[in-house]
Amino acid sequence: MAPDLPGGSRQPIAVIGAGLVGAGWAIVFARAGHAVRIYDDSASVRDGVMALIAQNVRDLKSFDLIDESPEALLSRIAVHSTLEAAVLNAAYVQESVFETVEAKTKIYGALDRLVPATAAIGSSSSGIPASAFTERCTTRQRMLIAHPVNPPYLVPLVELVPAPWTDAKTVDAVFAFMKAVGQEPIRVRREVEGFVLNRLQGALLNEAWALFDEGYASAEDIDKTVAVGLGLRWSFMGPFETIDLNAPAGVADYARRLGPLYYAVAQSRCSPKAWSAKLIDKVEAERRTKLSASALNQRRAWRDRRLMALAAHKAKAAKDVGS
Amino acid sequence: MAPDLPGGSRQPIAVIGAGLVGAGWAIVFARAGHAVRIYDDSASVRDGVMALIAQNVRDLKSFDLIDESPEALLSRIAVHSTLEAAVLNAAYVQESVFETVEAKTKIYGALDRLVPATAAIGSSSSGIPASAFTERCTTRQRMLIAHPVNPPYLVPLVELVPAPWTDAKTVDAVFAFMKAVGQEPIRVRREVEGFVLNRLQGALLNEAWALFDEGYASAEDIDKTVAVGLGLRWSFMGPFETIDLNAPAGVADYARRLGPLYYAVAQSRCSPKAWSAKLIDKVEAERRTKLSASALNQRRAWRDRRLMALAAHKAKAAKDVGS
Repeated sequence: MAPDLPGGSRQPIAVIGAGLVGAGWAIVFARAGHAVRIYDDSASVRDGVMALIAQNVRDLKSFDLIDESPEALLSRIAVHSTLEAAVLNAAYVQESVFETVEAKTKIYGALDRLVPATAAIGSSSSGIPASAFTERCTTRQRMLIAHPVNPPYLVPLVELVPAPWTDAKTVDAVFAFMKAVGQEPIRVRREVEGFVLNRLQGALLNEAWALFDEGYASAEDIDKTVAVGLGLRWSFMGPFETIDLNAPAGVADYARRLGPLYYAVAQSRCSPKAWSAKLIDKVEAERRTKLSASALNQRRAWRDRRLMALAAHKAKAAKDVGS
Repeated sequence: MAPDLPGGSRQPIAVIGAGLVGAGWAIVFARAGHAVRIYDDSASVRDGVMALIAQNVRDLKSFDLIDESPEALLSRIAVHSTLEAAVLNAAYVQESVFETVEAKTKIYGALDRLVPATAAIGSSSSGIPASAFTERCTTRQRMLIAHPVNPPYLVPLVELVPAPWTDAKTVDAVFAFMKAVGQEPIRVRREVEGFVLNRLQGALLNEAWALFDEGYASAEDIDKTVAVGLGLRWSFMGPFETIDLNAPAGVADYARRLGPLYYAVAQSRCSPKAWSAKLIDKVEAERRTKLSASALNQRRAWRDRRLMALAAHKAKAAKDVGS
């Protein structure tokens, strides 16, 4: 069955699990004009989430990233103390509970029974595939992964990953819905550990840790290589387009020139080592000389302000220069 | 011997090899106030390079990335028809000739004889280590890799990679010089195939090609995963800082939570395959449906304008939000 998803209309959306990720999703859906109903198992999380959301929405306003007043946007978000109330008449449910198979299995048992048959259910799971916790649901065909990047109201990518039993029409409908609320969905065609985003991140991280471990460069210098080098183009075009433009005749030309180098890099990493406790200690030690543990939260706030400034820049550059 | 490098003073800098990379370096040094002397073996390259540089400098001005007039900056750049004239009294030489061991060996033989004993010589080589073409030079201790990202006047990273015989004081002096002209040098402590930047890029590319090959996602969707997801944070902070901020207690906390996932990703790629001709054809075919071969140059111009807009944004964000 194809879920009856909103698109142009403005039906209520349920956000289940109200940590950082769930709170971020609530902003995405409310910003697009939907009524948002939040539920979390924890009363203290429920009590705190609106203050967190309000702060983020005010920050968005300060970077000119929303048109209406923060109050107008916030008025569409409500916190409910029962799962039943939150999913009542929901057109779509975004689940962002704690990422263990146990926690996911428990909530999907309840969602299976309570969510209107017409609504699709997407999970924010960043690594556990939907097949690990939806198999026994009687409505499992309307369940899939909709994995965001944090915070989703600043980083629009959403990975849609169906379980083997997810209805293709559900994927299409959630894809259209995510586009309609301003996100950028991609289709991962079948389940794979880490999906696409974390596999790409993991590949780069594994090389970064190995280079650090072998003493080729400090963590700070490896960070610089990305932050003032490799990462600049990747903030507006992907790796395939980047190399397509980096050889005179395009990507095939590039692959013939540089394929052998990258194959040699891959071959040199054929015996991967897990990040050892000793190696982790070394990386941690270097990071703590650059940023004390007590300053982590302050730096996270800086990161989010930089992401806001970047989001504003990207919107302007897409208009002025093209996308 | 430690080279007598400029820093505050404004001694002439020689740029040897005047393709895209050499032309970009000339802008970097001239923008910092140095007289720049360009030489290229090819008369047609020598004849065309000033027009290319002038266009780029005008573009920089249009994005408010230089304070003075384009003409004032350009007046410090001269093209010479002999290598001798270009390196006369040079305080530093940046070599960017064609990237083959043969071409590099030939030019280093000449530079060895002609460049003032006080000047260091950096190579723009993106993959060939300095030991492959400087071994027989009598002044090899002042030669090293200074690998930029293209174009260097917009992407500040420079990888400094010494050969086994490079004097540590040469590395220090070139590091200080690169900082003084506004670049962001990093120290790669010893030679490694691909250095740091292309190893990190290669690791991500290898995973991207494998995911495409196995049918998990289209090249377009893999590109989106980076361009509207993973790449956003990486445009202002590196992979270590990113994960340091992505777990409550910092990088060690993150590594303990997600290390096993990334180790599994690495293990799943233990038998790397070279990018086959058939696979290259498939990627090329998808890219050409998105961008025709005849539109590549236009898209490269778009990329450079986006990089300029991003450079202007990064300078502003560093001032307004912090870096």
